[in-house]
Amino acid sequence: MKIIVDAMGGDNAPKAPVLGALQANKEYGTQVILVGRGEEILQVMKDNGVEQLPAGIEIAHASQVIEMCDDPAFAFREKKDSSLTVGLELLKKGDGDAFVSAGSTGALLSGATLVTKRIKGIRRAALAPVVPTGNGGAVLIDCGANVKCPPEYLLQFAFMGSYYAQKVLGRENPKVGLLNNGVEPSKGTDLQVEVYPLLQKAAENGRINFVGNVEAREAVEGAVDVIVADGYSGNIFLKTMEGTGMFLAREMKKMFKKNFVTKLAAVLVSGGLKNFKKLMDSGEVGGTALLGISKPVIKAHGSSNDYAMKNAIRQAASFAASGLIEDITAHIEEMRLPAAPKE
Amino acid sequence: MKIIVDAMGGDNAPKAPVLGALQANKEYGTQVILVGRGEEILQVMKDNGVEQLPAGIEIAHASQVIEMCDDPAFAFREKKDSSLTVGLELLKKGDGDAFVSAGSTGALLSGATLVTKRIKGIRRAALAPVVPTGNGGAVLIDCGANVKCPPEYLLQFAFMGSYYAQKVLGRENPKVGLLNNGVEPSKGTDLQVEVYPLLQKAAENGRINFVGNVEAREAVEGAVDVIVADGYSGNIFLKTMEGTGMFLAREMKKMFKKNFVTKLAAVLVSGGLKNFKKLMDSGEVGGTALLGISKPVIKAHGSSNDYAMKNAIRQAASFAASGLIEDITAHIEEMRLPAAPKE
Repeated sequence: MKIIVDAMGGDNAPKAPVLGALQANKEYGTQVILVGRGEEILQVMKDNGVEQLPAGIEIAHASQVIEMCDDPAFAFREKKDSSLTVGLELLKKGDGDAFVSAGSTGALLSGATLVTKRIKGIRRAALAPVVPTGNGGAVLIDCGANVKCPPEYLLQFAFMGSYYAQKVLGRENPKVGLLNNGVEPSKGTDLQVEVYPLLQKAAENGRINFVGNVEAREAVEGAVDVIVADGYSGNIFLKTMEGTGMFLAREMKKMFKKNFVTKLAAVLVSGGLKNFKKLMDSGEVGGTALLGISKPVIKAHGSSNDYAMKNAIRQAASFAASGLIEDITAHIEEMRLPAAPKE
Repeated sequence: MKIIVDAMGGDNAPKAPVLGALQANKEYGTQVILVGRGEEILQVMKDNGVEQLPAGIEIAHASQVIEMCDDPAFAFREKKDSSLTVGLELLKKGDGDAFVSAGSTGALLSGATLVTKRIKGIRRAALAPVVPTGNGGAVLIDCGANVKCPPEYLLQFAFMGSYYAQKVLGRENPKVGLLNNGVEPSKGTDLQVEVYPLLQKAAENGRINFVGNVEAREAVEGAVDVIVADGYSGNIFLKTMEGTGMFLAREMKKMFKKNFVTKLAAVLVSGGLKNFKKLMDSGEVGGTALLGISKPVIKAHGSSNDYAMKNAIRQAASFAASGLIEDITAHIEEMRLPAAPKE
């Protein structure tokens, strides 16, 4: 398994991607192509006591870097020698099995769609993070790539999310829920009302295990394995979760830092606190899968450190090994509406 | 100040509303009309050592109870002698200054709209809870009453939420944000894109302090005093917050219950834990204001205990004393779009 890694993307680049790649290589034996400015990549290695390129690590030179201020829709084209564009070209050519970047989400999404291309028949690629829920995590699809969605997009998100939960998270017969403000089929905006019967039909045909509408609270508590949403409401769900987690973590910190006695309490419960932090740490999961692209692409969190990058690389490898894209391709006809324009 | 309280609404009725009313009466001197089955109300008092109706507490008999299984849109009409309908009629007649119910949200909303009526010019009443945020709470408007909203509704929500934050929460020049998946004016669905310039114009005219789009994470962290949303996404926001809070509270409990040492830690930090729980307890706030109705109406949480009911009664009293409805009425022309149908 060979993973292509954007060495220049993210707040902590090139250090975090380079060190994450070295760790993944060492721990899991994953081969990595680091894409970016060769001299900077080598310098990071040198600064960390690695004088020679380890076996299984390659460098693909790319002179440009896509910055957060670049227009995400055009950056990959305007900067043809950026680490992102070069990496996606390598992926397209088959030089590696998956691509990981902690750079701009928008640029990665546009680049992956236009360079690597979507799976034939898939209308839009979606961002599918695994969010921390009471059942050990659920796939949220979409969380922001597609704000305006016709019903067919959500039908495809449901299928792709279900395959991902099964193939990558190892859930058997994953429960698929439509994010809504109530459980009755009449609930939601026009979009949810139209999508509901489509998912129900797919369930009747035995294609997905659609369990109906799921309210946000129950979704967080772990009622489903896959949360289907348009990008707007998926984003509200994801960011509210993150915000609430951060807010409560800060309040908890205050509580433990108050005085000597509370600091002692923190020591007594330190093992649990570590697990608690892990629960809320996006770095644990690694990154967000871009589902619908013809090759595995993982968006790592912009603030990823080397540990998070290592996890994202591991996740990319298991995505590539899962046969997920082949599965989506094989079942594409079930995810299309008769009225949809042919592509 | 006299508050009309639905003695039969909520999971813990009639006990919680009756005891909450007694406490509010004792602590704040609030006068209360308890609406419901007289004998049951008196029995609750008797069971709690109150043999005689205290001064300032009245009972208005209503023989029927609206159950959760009743159709919320028609229940208040079909059960004309329900505590909800009788209470709202009393409110309309001016026998009390505000109405509090922990019963069905839908029935309360329909009843308040059709019995007590909306403020002239207000297109839809909205549910406006105060959600726990980093800045000590923010008004979320709407959180589920209106799933499908034209832009004018959200313009009115922004005004009403702003007045509420100012008059009831005591925020000076409250910051109003439009819940969105990014800060740029182009972000969101068609609705948010259309609402943005309306709010901007209201801000330019010095009517509200619109600070732009607010992402869910920043809203939780306390970036604004008023979060403007359609009922669908407001519901996702609210329920995700609740779910995440409950999920993390449960994980924290597990952490502290693990063994003798962690239990000791819980004791050492018990004061802080109590505050932490308060932070996530909807009972602290009391209830959700129904804004846009011509008289103050508060929806208490269905699971309210007597403490939460007492708080809801206190909140109803401060709503009634605030002059909020008069303020909305005085500024109604600023909240209307020229194209909107006259009412």
